Parts: sequence; C-alpha cells; structure tokens
Amino acid sequence: MKAATPVVSIDIVLLTILDGVLHVGLTKREREPFAGQLALPGGRFDIEKDSDEYDAAVRILREKTGVTSPYLEQLQTFAGANRDPRGWTVSIAHFAIVHAKVADTADARFTWRPVESVRTLPFDHARILQAAVTRVRTKSLYSSLPVHLMPEMFTLGQLQAAYEVLVGSPLDKRSFRRRMDELELLVEVPGAVTTGSGHRPAQQYRVKDGALGHLAVSDSNLGRKAA
Amino acid sequence: MKAATPVVSIDIVLLTILDGVLHVGLTKREREPFAGQLALPGGRFDIEKDSDEYDAAVRILREKTGVTSPYLEQLQTFAGANRDPRGWTVSIAHFAIVHAKVADTADARFTWRPVESVRTLPFDHARILQAAVTRVRTKSLYSSLPVHLMPEMFTLGQLQAAYEVLVGSPLDKRSFRRRMDELELLVEVPGAVTTGSGHRPAQQYRVKDGALGHLAVSDSNLGRKAA
Repeated sequence: MKAATPVVSIDIVLLTILDGVLHVGLTKREREPFAGQLALPGGRFDIEKDSDEYDAAVRILREKTGVTSPYLEQLQTFAGANRDPRGWTVSIAHFAIVHAKVADTADARFTWRPVESVRTLPFDHARILQAAVTRVRTKSLYSSLPVHLMPEMFTLGQLQAAYEVLVGSPLDKRSFRRRMDELELLVEVPGAVTTGSGHRPAQQYRVKDGALGHLAVSDSNLGRKAA
Repeated sequence: MKAATPVVSIDIVLLTILDGVLHVGLTKREREPFAGQLALPGGRFDIEKDSDEYDAAVRILREKTGVTSPYLEQLQTFAGANRDPRGWTVSIAHFAIVHAKVADTADARFTWRPVESVRTLPFDHARILQAAVTRVRTKSLYSSLPVHLMPEMFTLGQLQAAYEVLVGSPLDKRSFRRRMDELELLVEVPGAVTTGSGHRPAQQYRVKDGALGHLAVSDSNLGRKAA
C-alpha cells in the first residue's frame, strides 16, 4: 500500500520598515479555508517551472505580491496534522526583507500590518511569523541583514535606525560604527551629504557592489554590553 | 488542472565521535536508484502516525538506525528537479548527534564513516552532509551542542576534546573553561575523580538535569582570539 503524500507549499514572511516600525505583508485569502482573512502569501511548487526551492520561493513571492526581494532565505519547514483543517500538510517557510519603496510596489490586494499588531493568523502562520521575526532579530545582531532594508543611499544614522527596528532595542552608536567598519560593507558616495534642516550634514553611503543578496557575518553580538 | 505534487522525505545526518574523529552514519540502500550504495538514512512521512516533522524524524531515525538521539534538529529543506533521478523531490534534512556508546546500538546494517573520508554519496546527500557539518561547527562555537556527544560522566578535558572535534580546531583551555562556567550547564559528580595512570586526577562532571535536548547559547564565538 502506498502511503498518502502530504501537500507541500511555500509560505513567505515578507518584512519591511514603514514609519520606523516593522511590518509584515499579508494577503487576503480568496478561497476556503479562511476565505477573506489575511494570511501569509504562499503557493505550491510548480515542478514544470521551478528548479529548486529557492526558485519556487522567488516565483511565488513575485506572483503573489508583485515584489522582488534582494534578500530571501529559507526559514524552517513546518509540517503536521493540525496546521490545516484539510489535513496533513507541509510548509517550507521563507522570509524576505525589502525597503519601503519596494514594499510600495506590492499588489493592491497586499496589506502591510505592524508585526506587533498581528495577534492571530490562519493556519500556523502566527507561529511562522514569530519564527521569522526571531530569526531576523538574531541575524541582525551578527550580520549585514538590515542593509537589505535600505534605499540606494543612506546615512549611518538611518542604517542604525533600521538595525534597531530589527533588533528591537537601541544600539550603542560607537559599537554600531565599529561593526560597520568590521563588516567592510559600505562605501561613501562622493559628494552626497544630507542637508536636512536641524541636523548636521551627514555623509551618505551605499552598499558595496555585490554585497547584497548574501550576508557579511561577525563573530560577536552587536547588542552585547562591553565587558 | 491539478499540479503534480513532489514526493517528500526526511533525511537524517547522524553524527558521532569515534576514536577522536567525527563520523557519519550511513545505511546501505536496498532499492534502486543507487541500490547497494551507502546513503543517509531517510524515509517518508506516515500521516497516520506522525503528528509533525519532528515526530516523523524521531520515528524514521529509530526505524532506520535503531538509535534514539538526545539531540535532533531540523537542518534545511532541499528540493528540486535534479536531486533524484526519479523526478522532483523534497527532503526535509535533519541532523542528530549521539555518544559513541549510543552509536554502538545502531543496527548492524548501519556503517560509520569518517566524515572527511566521504567523497561522494547518492542524490544530493554529500551536500546535505556538508551543510550539517557546517551547522554543527557554527553551533559548537556558540552553544552547548557538543555535550550531547558525552557519556554520563566526563572530565572537562574530555568535553573540550569533543568540542575541538566538532569545531575542527584546537581551543584555548582557559576560554573553554570560562565558556563552561558561563553556560551554567555542568555539575560536579561528588567523589568521582579519574585516576588514569600518567594523568593528574581530574574531577568528573555530568550535565545538569533537564539540560539535554536543547541548547544553552552564548553571545560570543568560542574560537575567536582574544582581542
């Protein structure tokens, strides 16, 4: 007797920062179960089109949200009898992070919600969202992940603010700048200096060519108090 | 038209230390493709028996190897058209680590090979093995993972040796002992002192009750040279 094969899908936690607050992109479900409710975007493998799971996640993100993310990572696979009222299912969860301007290109049916305000979601999507936020927080303490949230040019103060939103707490300015030097990730944009009123002019930076899409990693925890 | 659903399996990288060297447990494949070749143990979900993916991995490890591991973690999911000559497949890869005595309880059809000596494996199992070894190395630099390789009682010297095998390089003795203090993981076994000839007597330790099966994690990299 051949065992029943569970249905496999890919679900994606798409994160951005809007108005200084971490937001997640949710899509209204068109079909039962949970028709009309907001849920994580997701879809099935297309074995004619997708060559691997990364490929499939990029395609599903694009088709379901209209967004192409500079950073997309596999999070964890969730499987079980109780995830979906229709039966035993498998979800290969991914997360992606995008700048607010990219988030703006998302389909109209896409809704951005502050992560903190999301209490319940269909299926086990609240658990998947929580796992993604935890992963993003941990990775931000050790890596260059937050640069994927930045526009083309930004000041160190703006980048630190993005780090702080992802980490979820304030960071020491000197430690942060040492970390940026250590990661060897940024280059000054010649002649680009902010001139906003009420602030001292600040040098603008961009990410080095080829440094987006993967992570530069440090040995130490950015949030740790100096001994 | 309903899209074809890929076949999903769970594959497990089972690691132990034998004679001071990291070994992986391989099983001889009974069926085509690759019949007769050594491969990672694996199996399919049983949606009648398994409540989730962890459950399934524990069951498959037990059924295929005879081993119950104190530590089993999801590694990564590998999917694609080119993994398996039979077509598009999904593997939810896990890793487990066990003490040599537990490794000894494995089925006779199970073979232990030094990880370094394994050049090729069927499917993408060499890639999965490499990913597991990298994960274990990284986790050992930050966490209590290697204690899951220890017998019931052990000296700090023996535990450091296990860490060094997983990390893949020598560690500073003082940094190592500081890390052990920091993790608050070990307790002295009263009156248990090694008396091996040629060595100074050494206190024996055990892992605190309840500390196996999950990880105590540190903020800093054990292998990093002091600044």
